[in-house]
Amino acid sequence: MQQILSTLYIATPGEGFTDITSKINQWIITNKIIKGILVLSVQHTSCSLTINENADPRVLEDLSSFIKALVPEEGISHQGGSIEHVPYQHSEEGADDMPAHIKTSLTCTSLSLSIENCRLVLGTWQAIYLWEHRQIKHSRKIFLHAIGEVQENNRLPKT
Amino acid sequence: MQQILSTLYIATPGEGFTDITSKINQWIITNKIIKGILVLSVQHTSCSLTINENADPRVLEDLSSFIKALVPEEGISHQGGSIEHVPYQHSEEGADDMPAHIKTSLTCTSLSLSIENCRLVLGTWQAIYLWEHRQIKHSRKIFLHAIGEVQENNRLPKT
Amino acid sequence: MQQILSTLYIATPGEGFTDITSKINQWIITNKIIKGILVLSVQHTSCSLTINENADPRVLEDLSSFIKALVPEEGISHQGGSIEHVPYQHSEEGADDMPAHIKTSLTCTSLSLSIENCRLVLGTWQAIYLWEHRQIKHSRKIFLHAIGEVQENNRLPKT
Repeated sequence: MQQILSTLYIATPGEGFTDITSKINQWIITNKIIKGILVLSVQHTSCSLTINENADPRVLEDLSSFIKALVPEEGISHQGGSIEHVPYQHSEEGADDMPAHIKTSLTCTSLSLSIENCRLVLGTWQAIYLWEHRQIKHSRKIFLHAIGEVQENNRLPKT
Repeated sequence: MQQILSTLYIATPGEGFTDITSKINQWIITNKIIKGILVLSVQHTSCSLTINENADPRVLEDLSSFIKALVPEEGISHQGGSIEHVPYQHSEEGADDMPAHIKTSLTCTSLSLSIENCRLVLGTWQAIYLWEHRQIKHSRKIFLHAIGEVQENNRLPKT
Repeated sequence: MQQILSTLYIATPGEGFTDITSKINQWIITNKIIKGILVLSVQHTSCSLTINENADPRVLEDLSSFIKALVPEEGISHQGGSIEHVPYQHSEEGADDMPAHIKTSLTCTSLSLSIENCRLVLGTWQAIYLWEHRQIKHSRKIFLHAIGEVQENNRLPKT
């Protein structure tokens, strides 16, 4: 049993989803991790990780529209008889910053996954996305940490 | 330290909760996992995993009602002065499909838990639920992956 | 590779956030865990774990205000033309109890993190919070479970 640690840098184009599934599978193959547990942890508080559909891109568009309506930039929606928007207190870093922190806490910062046969164990329609919640592009760090069996054949060359 | 991997199939009755706690504890006992970390990952994008109360079934009914109101089938709720529902773009797979994808991203697809003394380490009132977000029944796959100590006495019979 | 298990007790002052980052880092140092995976699992169904900003305390205040507006004590918000609040069925344990269960399922009960160089691998602005969802103070249990490399020098004194 071994541990493999690494940092993955993702350049996001601004608000939306970046599919990181193939990058992670490539990392698993490069490191020859046959079987193990993988922990992904995003090192920021205004983007998150989510697993969702990899087929119809409109799923991601609807997901994005939904969370923007749920966590509006205008502030917190108090719903009595009518709707009242109370502005966020934390506003110096931009109108999209506090909504980004809220979206982060409503989704996931860390994910645990399985590796079997040198691949992530995912369903047919699943992809892992880095979900950027800020409007403009960012460079994001995801820490990868696997514990498991690593193929050793390179270290034991045949004689 | 060993790894035990398995797939658990759950037949859901449609929208709602299936308590999988005892099935997982039984799997731990069958595999004699004394102490370890367990990763559960659901292999779908329209159901999820959640840990919540195991006592009053009305907690689950309220939870179900809440999320149906939060993520309505009519579409995304934009809340200006009044409420406007904009239909989802992804609609071909049924009115409950896009809401199911959203509910999945608002809850958890993977869970990490502890095993000690051949049992899940859970609080008195906690149960692990597979949360089906589609209206009709489905067969769902959950991948179980434990890393830890396994009782070896069967392999070392006393002489 | 070793396993270290422990229970952390946190006294919460009532609804809000308790930063547990330094307590966990101290536990890692005390147990000399050089490199490993750490699973945190809260043993309750009315508080949760979240990672969010550690700098401006107004981020936490806004986060708290947001989730209270999202999951109101008055009941489930059905949004047709106007808003209708339907009371929760599970109400015997106090007006804040069912909202607390819902908030738990919308956030995280378990977290997986990485340890490297005897420290949690977190971003500059990240802290781990126990998020109390009940109004009054509680004593909360968090289970800590690490798998990884432990420094052994105490067991092998120099001669």
